[in-house]
Amino acid sequence: MFMTHLECARCEAVYDCETRAHLCECGGPLLVRYDLNRVRESVRPAEFAGREPSLWRYRELLPLRDPDARVSLGEPMTPLLRLHRAGARVGLSRLYMKDEGLLPTGTFKARGAAVGVSRARELGVEALAMPTNGNAGAAWAAYSAAAGIECVIVMPADAPLIHRKECAVTGSTFYLVDGLISDAGKQVAGGVKRHGWYDASTLKEPYRIEGKKTMGLELAEQFQWQLPDVIVYPTGGGVGLIGIHKVFRELRELGWLDRPFPRMVAVQSSGCAPIVRAWEAGRRESEFWTGARTVAFGITVPKALGDFLVLDALYDTNGCAVETSDEEILQAQRLLARSEGTFICPEGAATLAATRKLSQSGWIKPGERVVLLNTGSGLKYPESVSTSPPVLAAGDSLPA
Amino acid sequence: MFMTHLECARCEAVYDCETRAHLCECGGPLLVRYDLNRVRESVRPAEFAGREPSLWRYRELLPLRDPDARVSLGEPMTPLLRLHRAGARVGLSRLYMKDEGLLPTGTFKARGAAVGVSRARELGVEALAMPTNGNAGAAWAAYSAAAGIECVIVMPADAPLIHRKECAVTGSTFYLVDGLISDAGKQVAGGVKRHGWYDASTLKEPYRIEGKKTMGLELAEQFQWQLPDVIVYPTGGGVGLIGIHKVFRELRELGWLDRPFPRMVAVQSSGCAPIVRAWEAGRRESEFWTGARTVAFGITVPKALGDFLVLDALYDTNGCAVETSDEEILQAQRLLARSEGTFICPEGAATLAATRKLSQSGWIKPGERVVLLNTGSGLKYPESVSTSPPVLAAGDSLPA
Repeated sequence: MFMTHLECARCEAVYDCETRAHLCECGGPLLVRYDLNRVRESVRPAEFAGREPSLWRYRELLPLRDPDARVSLGEPMTPLLRLHRAGARVGLSRLYMKDEGLLPTGTFKARGAAVGVSRARELGVEALAMPTNGNAGAAWAAYSAAAGIECVIVMPADAPLIHRKECAVTGSTFYLVDGLISDAGKQVAGGVKRHGWYDASTLKEPYRIEGKKTMGLELAEQFQWQLPDVIVYPTGGGVGLIGIHKVFRELRELGWLDRPFPRMVAVQSSGCAPIVRAWEAGRRESEFWTGARTVAFGITVPKALGDFLVLDALYDTNGCAVETSDEEILQAQRLLARSEGTFICPEGAATLAATRKLSQSGWIKPGERVVLLNTGSGLKYPESVSTSPPVLAAGDSLPA
Repeated sequence: MFMTHLECARCEAVYDCETRAHLCECGGPLLVRYDLNRVRESVRPAEFAGREPSLWRYRELLPLRDPDARVSLGEPMTPLLRLHRAGARVGLSRLYMKDEGLLPTGTFKARGAAVGVSRARELGVEALAMPTNGNAGAAWAAYSAAAGIECVIVMPADAPLIHRKECAVTGSTFYLVDGLISDAGKQVAGGVKRHGWYDASTLKEPYRIEGKKTMGLELAEQFQWQLPDVIVYPTGGGVGLIGIHKVFRELRELGWLDRPFPRMVAVQSSGCAPIVRAWEAGRRESEFWTGARTVAFGITVPKALGDFLVLDALYDTNGCAVETSDEEILQAQRLLARSEGTFICPEGAATLAATRKLSQSGWIKPGERVVLLNTGSGLKYPESVSTSPPVLAAGDSLPA
């Protein structure tokens, strides 16, 4: 176990990692720091391949004191698919998709929940609470059930129905709010204060990001520690993008990377694009987006606590931010399903829509290695597909 | 590549495996046979661990001429979860669940489709057709899209809605039938005859079973080639159970197993239990079940083509067949979600309901190692969970 302390992402103040910690006194999120010199002496990248095929293989860079005491629903290493046909359609010969829809609960949120809940249990947490657009809440509800931790979830009443079912079946206490995730966030903050719950809101505990960063570790390993040229990421709260950027810095400090970082692309919907606006204006923070609404519900985040870290990652890697319309998103979802067989969530499909634009504009060159990060399974979004198939009587025969 | 020929499971007639083959002239399904002596000389069990963590690591026991030409959506090795709390609830200290819900399309059907479609493409198939209760059709539609093969699907109009969406988004041609899978089967048989489609119906092509048998290979490897005592399997068409039994025989012939086979348990719903009736009567085949209806829609198969192979597996392994009510199934689904965090499909939950009965009756002893085979994710079955959470206004505060 190589975690040494927590550090504020804004003011670099240092905090103990052996007691519960949330935000810094300055309001900034806390990041986990490791003794990377000791990590370097303890493990070489080639060793990971011989371990179990899950995020837990990277235990030296994870924050658990006792990796055997982890809370797990069996997190497989997610596949990196080569998209030949879809790549040809957008003018790219080396297009890939990392498919996070195969994780427990059907989304990448399982990574953050697996590590976050594991660490919460290690710290003695008995009840936690969080606001959510649905997927994160469902994941934390599931892992909390596995951990024997009580879980309180608040989600917008507009969130996809499946998330209610997930929160109900796993026995969490959950509420709908007639509002946005930002409204749910205020309610959770109040509940945390009054009832002493552990605040598991995005970036208000330091360990979720450590789970999310394992996407970057898997990518590094799947590309033989030769990172791709571009990573395209659907951005709501942006924790995954922050986590990937964080771990790439750790890997560079470890001396395990010998190429420049991939350019990171934050994709948002035109119905909620605060990061895109901020990036276009060259700003370090975003402004609250009024009237947010998009088919890609998971990225409906009007103002992310970690916006400055997302923007920092874009500037640091010569990346960019791109918005796409709901229509482009649903078109991209169909294109991927028909050409590659993968039924993915609208948030994930937004990455292909954005990549098409960046390819057309020349920002991405035809031979560059580009990774789309699909954050979840389309199975959670049946309403994103419409169909009215013919109904036959039992004796009818099939047309040609 | 070690496949040598196809052999009828009824009359042992031999068929060429390099041309398209469906049923034997006698009506029996065809099984793939391998030169196991050459397999034994070519690979040792310990070598699999160093290969990619997916079903393709067992290539010597799969029917592809060119494993690199496979059609894949990234099939991770599925986790074997230890169920401590649920085990305690049913009186078992070593209860496990193999969670097939993490495969592409959210069910174990992906295994059969991955191998079946890969082999179909190798054989030059351009269009295939199949009847389905939903999950198999969705999986074959997805893999057919990935392969560039046209796909015709017929499913009962009562099948869960999600399967329509999956078939639509991946571009298959599909129909609903006002009837059961047996009615859909007749329509597909007619279409195959008239239009020359490749018949991908259950056991009417020999390769799906080879994909399904990889559940048995993964189990063997996950138990360090020391098989568990009991495997509990939700049984509709029964291909998975047949496949697992088939590969255990192959492993025994290879000399890789030194314990008796696990006792195999076929679980059905009281609303459709033809295998259970046949087993209770000691028969070799089942009779068509009239008026089939159960919440576990995937196992609503009134008369399975491979029923005699399922029953053979039960008799051969000193197994049994058990039925459970819909109420018991839904109770078991909730119990697993609340105690272990796993939201699984009703078919999978039926295995826990059956295991509770077998534990209570003494058929399973408290210390035996028992594996529940969960065939799919609960995410595909939102209607199996009901909930009506409180709705708050944006300014409301949360109760304790």
